[in-house]
Amino acid sequence: MTSHMAREIAEIPAACARLLSGPADEAIRAAAAEWRALDPPLLVTVGRGSSDHAATYLSYACGIVSGVIPASYPLSLASLHRQEPRAAGAAALAISQSGSSPDIVAAATAMRDGGASLLVLTNTAGSPLARTSEQVIDIGARPERAVAATKSYVASVVAGLRVIGMWHEATELLDATERLPDALADALTRRTDGIAEVLGTTDRLIVVGRGPSLGVAQELALKSMELCQTTALAFSSAEIRHGPMQALHGDYPVLDLERGDPLPGTRTLHPPERPSLHPLVDPLLDLAPIYVALEAAARARGLDPDAPSRLTKETATT
Amino acid sequence: MTSHMAREIAEIPAACARLLSGPADEAIRAAAAEWRALDPPLLVTVGRGSSDHAATYLSYACGIVSGVIPASYPLSLASLHRQEPRAAGAAALAISQSGSSPDIVAAATAMRDGGASLLVLTNTAGSPLARTSEQVIDIGARPERAVAATKSYVASVVAGLRVIGMWHEATELLDATERLPDALADALTRRTDGIAEVLGTTDRLIVVGRGPSLGVAQELALKSMELCQTTALAFSSAEIRHGPMQALHGDYPVLDLERGDPLPGTRTLHPPERPSLHPLVDPLLDLAPIYVALEAAARARGLDPDAPSRLTKETATT
Repeated sequence: MTSHMAREIAEIPAACARLLSGPADEAIRAAAAEWRALDPPLLVTVGRGSSDHAATYLSYACGIVSGVIPASYPLSLASLHRQEPRAAGAAALAISQSGSSPDIVAAATAMRDGGASLLVLTNTAGSPLARTSEQVIDIGARPERAVAATKSYVASVVAGLRVIGMWHEATELLDATERLPDALADALTRRTDGIAEVLGTTDRLIVVGRGPSLGVAQELALKSMELCQTTALAFSSAEIRHGPMQALHGDYPVLDLERGDPLPGTRTLHPPERPSLHPLVDPLLDLAPIYVALEAAARARGLDPDAPSRLTKETATT
Repeated sequence: MTSHMAREIAEIPAACARLLSGPADEAIRAAAAEWRALDPPLLVTVGRGSSDHAATYLSYACGIVSGVIPASYPLSLASLHRQEPRAAGAAALAISQSGSSPDIVAAATAMRDGGASLLVLTNTAGSPLARTSEQVIDIGARPERAVAATKSYVASVVAGLRVIGMWHEATELLDATERLPDALADALTRRTDGIAEVLGTTDRLIVVGRGPSLGVAQELALKSMELCQTTALAFSSAEIRHGPMQALHGDYPVLDLERGDPLPGTRTLHPPERPSLHPLVDPLLDLAPIYVALEAAARARGLDPDAPSRLTKETATT
């Protein structure tokens, strides 16, 4: 029996392909044109959970191709403290699959009212979040029934990369995103034996990334908690040397997305080998086969990958 | 035998008092006057490890008292990717006790060269970081010999709160900081029995905070890793509902700085009861006695609180 999660992971290449043409592409081009004309020095992101990890990915990508400063807006400033941010001249990017959590809607509204040019990335046209702005990209990942977001995470990142690429006229990045559907289909076939085994048994995990792959590390750490009940943390390869290193003893499982040297005291694992497309899209190629491993690991533990017992698909927080 | 760490925790009230008068106070007033005149809409922070957690604390404090947008600058954009950020008109706050790590110096330099009004908070006058700006606050916490920063973390936060208070003329916040030396001395006497016991035995911990106390939660999670080799994570009370909830089973130890209702599946602990001074300084009063508990917990585990085996006092990363 196949899980919803397994089916949705398999749909990742098609979801990505849909972003390259049709209505989503038109919305992406319009958003990029607006920001290219505005030329904002600041990109403020609004998101939680997987969407916030997509924002991390996009913040690095935008920072690497430009001098734009990325800022992750602390949602409680809007939802609890009712602050109106001084966002005139800034770009704001709100990401939410469901588009319904009150804190996300409050922060997006505050950005718009504070003067930002607000762009919404969502998988739910007509959601409260989508109604906060005229600039909306429906990522078109189609219904996602597993609680753990997979295709919508990847689609959010790809949509954002397309916006950044067109905004900054980063042609190599854009070319690479066009090759993503095929590359992701290839990536999904790669074996992750060592990783699947560890994910299926460990109660602790550190995922290491840097730059855009830190956003993937955060996403995989969260998914390990959601699907495998594993206490999992994400660190940059620099941050881990400021203290966390001390906890690494006893063959501590570390998944290093940067493929660095093994950290002392750890069992360091790397994603499967694969061809490189572009540094700003490659982390997605590492992510895809590990999603497959996580789905299998959850089942190996006797857990339901589609419906973690304590979670619901839409999490409303303030 | 007393550890350096224990002595340095005991020095927190005095370090805090020194910030309220003398050379540090003059530098704080000058920095606040500059930013009040500049009126920046953006505060970009630069830091790693404990200093980054101080930056988290100050980002929320600044966001709560004003519409200034906080941004934590991804250090690798400067150190690895050589990006010059478009920081004209922004305030930048670089925090480092040693002031020597290359990535911190690179990011602070990039902020200055990108046009920001750069303020440096450091415990090391004359350090490479201090030389990046004419606006330097020597937090004057005096030598700190334990690897785990304690008095310098608190002093960095207090210095930053003073700057924010004077910049935004937040008189109640300033009044509260003036009462901090006595309140911290009182806080250090409060018993943390349940917490000390858990920190001395658990291999996993989640610390929950929100707003400024998220910065304290990050700091305590890091210290638990450094001192007790505990796998520890910090979450906001909203973020924990987006997935991590699933990992909470089997009396999972949770230290909730917000004193909320116990999370299902957890053994939820709260900091000791204490009087409230002001919402933006109270998290420091919760932190102080838990530092004491962490020092005792490390010793109870047979670990040296002054010198975790894999760490050095100054961590240089790029």
